Amino acid sequence: MNGEIALMVMSHGQFAKAAMASLELVIGKQNNYDTMAIELVDNVDALKEEMFEKVAKLDTERGLVVFTDILGGTPMNLAGHLLVKDNVLLCSGFNLPMLLEFSLNRGKDFSEIRSVIEMAYSNGMSIATNDNLKEEEEDDLFL
Amino acid sequence: MNGEIALMVMSHGQFAKAAMASLELVIGKQNNYDTMAIELVDNVDALKEEMFEKVAKLDTERGLVVFTDILGGTPMNLAGHLLVKDNVLLCSGFNLPMLLEFSLNRGKDFSEIRSVIEMAYSNGMSIATNDNLKEEEEDDLFL
Repeated sequence: MNGEIALMVMSHGQFAKAAMASLELVIGKQNNYDTMAIELVDNVDALKEEMFEKVAKLDTERGLVVFTDILGGTPMNLAGHLLVKDNVLLCSGFNLPMLLEFSLNRGKDFSEIRSVIEMAYSNGMSIATNDNLKEEEEDDLFL
Repeated sequence: MNGEIALMVMSHGQFAKAAMASLELVIGKQNNYDTMAIELVDNVDALKEEMFEKVAKLDTERGLVVFTDILGGTPMNLAGHLLVKDNVLLCSGFNLPMLLEFSLNRGKDFSEIRSVIEMAYSNGMSIATNDNLKEEEEDDLFL
C-alpha cells in the first residue's frame, strides 16, 4: 500500500495523457496512476478490457478516482463500469486545477477527496478582460 | 473576416494542443485558432514573440478568446500581455466542456461569449459514486 488514492484519467484522444504530463511539469512525477486515450474508431470491448487491466495494476486499497474529459461519450461510458465497487469516484470535466489539487491531496482519506475536487473546480476558473487592467490602473491612482 | 472569434489555447507542455485535438475528434476540424506549449525551461522573451506572431496570423476582427491551463504560471503570465486590446478575453482553467461550448458558439457576438463560457464551466463537471448506482437501483424498485 503506497498511501495514495489511485488515479485514472481518461479522454478522447491524447488529452488525458497530456494533462498528466503537464501536471508533472508543474509538480513533478506522480505514482499510482494511469491514463487512457480513446479514439472514436476503437473497439469498445477491447477498451473495456484495457481499462480493467490498467486499473488492476493500480493500488486501489485507499480508493480510486477516475477523471474523464466530458459527461457522456465513450470515455465516460467506459469509466461507468468502474463504479461497481465502493471507494470509486468518477468525475467528468477535468481541468488542470482539479487534477493538481487532487494530486496534492492523494494522501488524504477517501471520504475527504470529493470536497477537495469540488472546491478545486469551483476555484479553478478565472476570466479577465482589458477592463480588469483599466480597473487596476484606476486603483493605482488612489495609492 | 471568417465570422468566428479567434481562439488561442496555452498550457504547460502539450496539454493545450491535445485538448484541441480531442475537441476536433468530438466535433470536427476547427479554424482560426492556434495553441502554445510552454515548457518550464523555455525563454520567456522568445515565447512572447512566438505568441504575438501566432496571434497576428489569426483573424481577430470579431475578438479573441485565450484559454490557459491554470491561474498563475508562465502560460497565464504570457497571455496577460494579450490583454492590451479590447475584445480580448482571458480565461484560465480550461476543460473540454468549456472549449466545446465556446467552439460551438464562436459565431456569436463577442459580448455574449463570456456568459457562454461561464455557463459551460458551471455545467461542465459531474461527480458520481457507487451510491448513485444504488440510488438508481432503488428507484427501479418503484417503477
